Amino acid sequence: MAKDKNMLLKWLRDAHAMESSAESILEKQVKRVKDHPEVHRRIADHLEETRRQQTRLEDCINKLGGDTSVLKEMVGKFSGTMQALGAAGADDELVKAAISNYAFESMEIASYKSLIAAAEAYNEPEIRRVCEEILVEEERMAEWLENNVGAITRDHLSRMGVSVHEPSKPGPESRREPPRPRA
Amino acid sequence: MAKDKNMLLKWLRDAHAMESSAESILEKQVKRVKDHPEVHRRIADHLEETRRQQTRLEDCINKLGGDTSVLKEMVGKFSGTMQALGAAGADDELVKAAISNYAFESMEIASYKSLIAAAEAYNEPEIRRVCEEILVEEERMAEWLENNVGAITRDHLSRMGVSVHEPSKPGPESRREPPRPRA
Repeated sequence: MAKDKNMLLKWLRDAHAMESSAESILEKQVKRVKDHPEVHRRIADHLEETRRQQTRLEDCINKLGGDTSVLKEMVGKFSGTMQALGAAGADDELVKAAISNYAFESMEIASYKSLIAAAEAYNEPEIRRVCEEILVEEERMAEWLENNVGAITRDHLSRMGVSVHEPSKPGPESRREPPRPRA
Repeated sequence: MAKDKNMLLKWLRDAHAMESSAESILEKQVKRVKDHPEVHRRIADHLEETRRQQTRLEDCINKLGGDTSVLKEMVGKFSGTMQALGAAGADDELVKAAISNYAFESMEIASYKSLIAAAEAYNEPEIRRVCEEILVEEERMAEWLENNVGAITRDHLSRMGVSVHEPSKPGPESRREPPRPRA
């Protein structure tokens, strides 16, 4: 391995630790949302994706000559970080979980964007390709959460017995415009 | 205050605690990025926005008859959560900060989307309007981070002495499509 690829290797290991933490968070959540079928299905699907992503990152690490036997030690680096926000057991658990999952997905998105730039800088097109594929999966999950956090909030209030006011016209859930190309 | 508006009040207080935490994170960061003028300017601007957002949330809390004197106690609820990811002092501090700031902005975005749905459900158009305005500010900051995390990564590698490979054509930094309207 070229010595100066140490930083790329470190960031791939960080990403692997992040996905391991995501797996552990999603495993806990998937058991708790059984009475919300659509949320359950999306989390279960993403749990499977997350497991496959870990394997693909291990392949990238091996490709750079890195050792994957140390990866387990790094698991938990990110644990507890977002879980605290998930607020398991709070009466608004599902709403808080949607918010914290979106934040976690966004951390993953920014991490893969950074990794793609790094793989490109190091002229590692295969690693770049893998990170681009994983990025698409994370963006799909983030998009689903972004489009559903409002509905999850309204559903929670209805279940709590709040007589939910129906607006005259539905507001757009997102105002974000597609990112402009950088100059 | 209508008794059943307790949940809206709680969520506004959560948002206020989140902005207080954001203020404290940005205050630390703004001192550490002085040799990166563009990053410094964007963080300094968002620090000012964040302070104004707190005042606007206090107005919303007062409007619902809530007490803002207890808000200070909630500060720090979110502290440490994202700061751990900021990894101050690590040699890739600026890259990690860009990633964790994006995750924090995303937590804010999802929180305001949830609050907008709640304000709508409770028929509180003024609170909804304030949250929509703050959402736009958070989305702008997130968009800036999303568009710049790759450049910040390349800049870090260059400063570390990595001979950065110039790709034949620049890859798009984002593949996310605009959210589709929910069915």
